[in-house]
Amino acid sequence: MSKILEILKEVKESGIKNIYKKNIENVLGALTKTTDFWKMIDYSNIPVPYAAKIIEILKNKGIVEIKNDEIILTPLGLEIIKEEGVSAIKKELRCEACQGRTIPFYKDIELYRTFVELQKDRPKAIQDFDQGSVTPETTIARVLFIDSKGDLEGKNIIVMGAEDDLTGLAIALTRKFKKLLIIDIDERLIEFDNKIIKELGIENVEAKVWDLRNPYPEDMLGQFDVFITDPPETFIAFKAFIERGIATIKDEGGSGYFGLTLRDSSIFRWKKFQKELLDIGCVITDIIQDFNDYMNWDYHEETKAQKVAPVNKKPQDIWYRSAWYRIEVLPGFKRVNEQIPQEIFDKLYLDEEGSTT
Amino acid sequence: MSKILEILKEVKESGIKNIYKKNIENVLGALTKTTDFWKMIDYSNIPVPYAAKIIEILKNKGIVEIKNDEIILTPLGLEIIKEEGVSAIKKELRCEACQGRTIPFYKDIELYRTFVELQKDRPKAIQDFDQGSVTPETTIARVLFIDSKGDLEGKNIIVMGAEDDLTGLAIALTRKFKKLLIIDIDERLIEFDNKIIKELGIENVEAKVWDLRNPYPEDMLGQFDVFITDPPETFIAFKAFIERGIATIKDEGGSGYFGLTLRDSSIFRWKKFQKELLDIGCVITDIIQDFNDYMNWDYHEETKAQKVAPVNKKPQDIWYRSAWYRIEVLPGFKRVNEQIPQEIFDKLYLDEEGSTT
Repeated sequence: MSKILEILKEVKESGIKNIYKKNIENVLGALTKTTDFWKMIDYSNIPVPYAAKIIEILKNKGIVEIKNDEIILTPLGLEIIKEEGVSAIKKELRCEACQGRTIPFYKDIELYRTFVELQKDRPKAIQDFDQGSVTPETTIARVLFIDSKGDLEGKNIIVMGAEDDLTGLAIALTRKFKKLLIIDIDERLIEFDNKIIKELGIENVEAKVWDLRNPYPEDMLGQFDVFITDPPETFIAFKAFIERGIATIKDEGGSGYFGLTLRDSSIFRWKKFQKELLDIGCVITDIIQDFNDYMNWDYHEETKAQKVAPVNKKPQDIWYRSAWYRIEVLPGFKRVNEQIPQEIFDKLYLDEEGSTT
Repeated sequence: MSKILEILKEVKESGIKNIYKKNIENVLGALTKTTDFWKMIDYSNIPVPYAAKIIEILKNKGIVEIKNDEIILTPLGLEIIKEEGVSAIKKELRCEACQGRTIPFYKDIELYRTFVELQKDRPKAIQDFDQGSVTPETTIARVLFIDSKGDLEGKNIIVMGAEDDLTGLAIALTRKFKKLLIIDIDERLIEFDNKIIKELGIENVEAKVWDLRNPYPEDMLGQFDVFITDPPETFIAFKAFIERGIATIKDEGGSGYFGLTLRDSSIFRWKKFQKELLDIGCVITDIIQDFNDYMNWDYHEETKAQKVAPVNKKPQDIWYRSAWYRIEVLPGFKRVNEQIPQEIFDKLYLDEEGSTT
């Protein structure tokens, strides 16, 4: 049996089910690029608790050693990498101009500058609501990506939660939509948005506090062309968020945008997500990996991620990214709009694969 | 009923089933950007025969007129666009550096230059084999994309057909793989590759003529880490090509790369493709729209596309593009390796949605 498959077997025996050969290869490959645990996560696209377990096993097998909080491949590790043809993911090949997003944020430099200026006093990300904001470049690239698909000008748009990224505010600043509704559970964000919208006199925007557990009122159903959200990554929560989004869509061909990561979900769960999207009447039109760059959040030390990490060193740079999905809603889609039970919501933000909340 | 839905109804009544509201909007949106039929296809992501039918109906309704082979929106057309909030797809927002591919071809400028020089005498695309080559920038960006995912260095790679794009040759030039097998039905291409491989003394590459209808010999099954192909876009052919690719994969986590277009397939067929990929044990990790740019082919005038077009004007520029898919093969996948019946193969290259072959 190959050394990689041996390691895989041991990781599985330790109780991790949703793991496959590629995960082991990606971790080993990443360690040829960096000795930093958090950068290794960035390079290997794997849930943090799984990465921590793999490192533990690699250490026990003498494949890596940990010195001064750095993870270093031993001569044995380097030999395995060579023998088994392990290759690292090469982020250095990403386009510098658009940072691998296909659309560069600077295509509307005025919008970017205005946004950067306005967001300076944004409310801080808090752990209560699973917050962690993307960079301003990410937010603006999202807006331009949506515009590039013909999903902004003249459209009715709803931004459902995750307004800690201020995507709703950035869309508001374009003034290109027909109608814009921003909802979030965090009243600090809604107040922040409303203050700016009022000061700038932007019309046809509403920002309101809303708890996504509650069904939408009749006047929000079937009203929108586009929904944008950032679902928590447990299956049940994902399904609930996306179904709520689809319930707001007016016609076939309406579209949805959201982020999904491989750092709080395994590839196995991605497959379940994708199957669910098709089952509820959607088609996937775009998946851009590493589109969403997350700034480090103040509560990092309190997260499961830091607790399970094999090092005490905190992230020095951006390490958490997610892919950007675009879906379209096809004819025959259904609008599901039921109460999401509290007990499901309690488990929304954390499970075996998730660790950053 | 909205004007767009009225047009949609009429298009459906003319016998086109796989069409939805977004198609009509995209065609109208595209006409705000261009009066050229082929550029309009590029901007609207729609099968050519469907676009031709929509234009015919728009003309009958006085929404467009055709003058000197240009398609022009009438005042009525402009009014509908404004009233219904129709927005164009905005290709001008694409990154100029990587041309929207996330990885720019110039990240390995030596490889690009060598390839451009070597491919000058490439065999011409011929209609017999549904050929039409991508630009050299596309080919090199594919190779770098594959490398960026950790799927090149030290890997066993098979390029299955579509060597008119010379993707196999470009991979050979990197000398980074462990083993490379290039197969194609067109012996001109295989001879072309073999000549260069021999002259440059590149090792561990084999290029051989192979008819994909035939099952693979035992020594090709379960041997590879990565497969690359360009399946014809009928459902039955797509399934056969992808299954053949998966049959070559050694282990879970192996990956596949291929192009899919919305210019020879409807979004409805994409949904079937995506469902099939999940059903046969894969997960989709990347979908980059407009990654593959196709050069115009000499036999364009002989294609159904030109015959159904409402104008005589030929394409002036690149108009045919496809999305680039990456999939991963998950644990439990099956190797299917049966003869593909001739009668299925006869229908491979043309159906109601396809038109460019």
